Amino acid sequence: MSVNDTLAPSANSFFLPVVSVVGVGLIGGSFAKALKNGGHAGCVLGVGRDHASLERALQLGLIDRIATLEEAGKASDFILISTPASVLGRICEIIGPLLKPGAIVTDACSTKVQVIEDARQSLKERTNQFIPGHPIAGSDESGPAAADPLLYWNRNVILTPLPENSGDDIKRVRQCWQACGAIVREISAIEHDRIFATVSHFPHYLSALYMSMVCRSDSSGLALALAGTGFRDFTRIAGGSPEMWRDIFISNKEAMLNEIDVFLPMLEKTRQMIEDSDVDGLHAWLEQASLARKKWGENK
Amino acid sequence: MSVNDTLAPSANSFFLPVVSVVGVGLIGGSFAKALKNGGHAGCVLGVGRDHASLERALQLGLIDRIATLEEAGKASDFILISTPASVLGRICEIIGPLLKPGAIVTDACSTKVQVIEDARQSLKERTNQFIPGHPIAGSDESGPAAADPLLYWNRNVILTPLPENSGDDIKRVRQCWQACGAIVREISAIEHDRIFATVSHFPHYLSALYMSMVCRSDSSGLALALAGTGFRDFTRIAGGSPEMWRDIFISNKEAMLNEIDVFLPMLEKTRQMIEDSDVDGLHAWLEQASLARKKWGENK
Repeated sequence: MSVNDTLAPSANSFFLPVVSVVGVGLIGGSFAKALKNGGHAGCVLGVGRDHASLERALQLGLIDRIATLEEAGKASDFILISTPASVLGRICEIIGPLLKPGAIVTDACSTKVQVIEDARQSLKERTNQFIPGHPIAGSDESGPAAADPLLYWNRNVILTPLPENSGDDIKRVRQCWQACGAIVREISAIEHDRIFATVSHFPHYLSALYMSMVCRSDSSGLALALAGTGFRDFTRIAGGSPEMWRDIFISNKEAMLNEIDVFLPMLEKTRQMIEDSDVDGLHAWLEQASLARKKWGENK
Repeated sequence: MSVNDTLAPSANSFFLPVVSVVGVGLIGGSFAKALKNGGHAGCVLGVGRDHASLERALQLGLIDRIATLEEAGKASDFILISTPASVLGRICEIIGPLLKPGAIVTDACSTKVQVIEDARQSLKERTNQFIPGHPIAGSDESGPAAADPLLYWNRNVILTPLPENSGDDIKRVRQCWQACGAIVREISAIEHDRIFATVSHFPHYLSALYMSMVCRSDSSGLALALAGTGFRDFTRIAGGSPEMWRDIFISNKEAMLNEIDVFLPMLEKTRQMIEDSDVDGLHAWLEQASLARKKWGENK
């Protein structure tokens, strides 16, 4: 199957007259562009707090019009909220009462339990129109200029549907992401948050913590000049948006604290191995880690 | 300046009749091939414990002959020891008494203080012939098949010369690495070890610790299936050689323990921020890390 086969309307036929993207950065902009390229969207409205960024999205053809949240709420058949998690509740509060009966709202937040709680409180009897989602894709770059209609190609998108959601609405969200070339999976919100604490949020925490430690050290100038490719890769994620990650850590608090509390005794144990020059203990630990990483790499 | 300009003999004219590489993997093999390509080596001898690996290096043209350590010690004008740090002392013990008067020995180990101590104990009055070095280059791949004469192109190589070394011998080691396209710097062994604990050894420690934590978790199967590009980059270094990294951690023990002991209270502090939903505290920390990483990326 080629890129064209998947993005062509014939392979996945649906049409949404009005699509809105709230937060037109890398995630929202890439989604909008993929839907437009596939002929699945009549008109794409872009909503955001940064007008320059919206103008850029318009110039780049990611969106067809800049709109207010109220306009988007009233007019849309499909709304993707791709903002930091902390503002999702407020957005839902505004659009909730304005939504057309058949309109679908989804999101791209990296945590789900708290986001669902916020959406329920804001959308109330319209909660059934909200299908929570999380596309697993990213880039070093951010903002509309980084948007790429192929960003989701062969990437996972997780949906964590609510008991209130209709099968047809879930199917429509699936179709949208599949039109972007993504592989769509459904799991529970709790499982989602536990898994992403492990494979995404906690590594970000360690990388950011390490990065702030390095730049506080006395010899950080020469150290940073001599840092190589290992450092580059290990710290890449630490360059992410402080606002987004702050929200993720707080909104996935329980799972994050659990990760830290599992990590801490392992850190203390391996620290002791180093102090004791425990050749066999260190070798067994490092070999397990190395084999696990190699095996993962082979399956990707 | 093009690659050919730098690798051409005319740009950096010297000739070593017999060069030996002890440990013909990625590091040693790449060095050997670059010297051969530049016309700087008459005959390259390969020494190692794994005969199949040496045969492969011979087939690939990285070395001209397989030799014993004794043969290499007697015949060589220049010897690069590119083995795990723990065996350097034993290698020096064997080659020390056999070395020709003008022969130069250098190494590629990632720690320097302990390696220098081991070399001194083994080489004794011949310690002046040992110029400690550390090329800052690597790859996901290892072994002779991964060797690449351009591996060191535009990479840093650190020398930590001893008071006993002659200026001419230091210059010769510089020339060899410059012939590989590297940028050569000199710093003290203590400073080297402190800096590389920070920018290399400690990130490896965190990455390996995290990787072993993930594969012990109950839901590791699905978690690993959903892990994305952030996970991939953050854990890449954890795939490294357990033997090499075990030796590095032990041989750079003091600096490693210091890194862990600086990290631990920062981990406890940020854990508390998450527990307290400290929006401002988390934002300030993550912003510092993000800006530092972006600034580093721009300068690279």
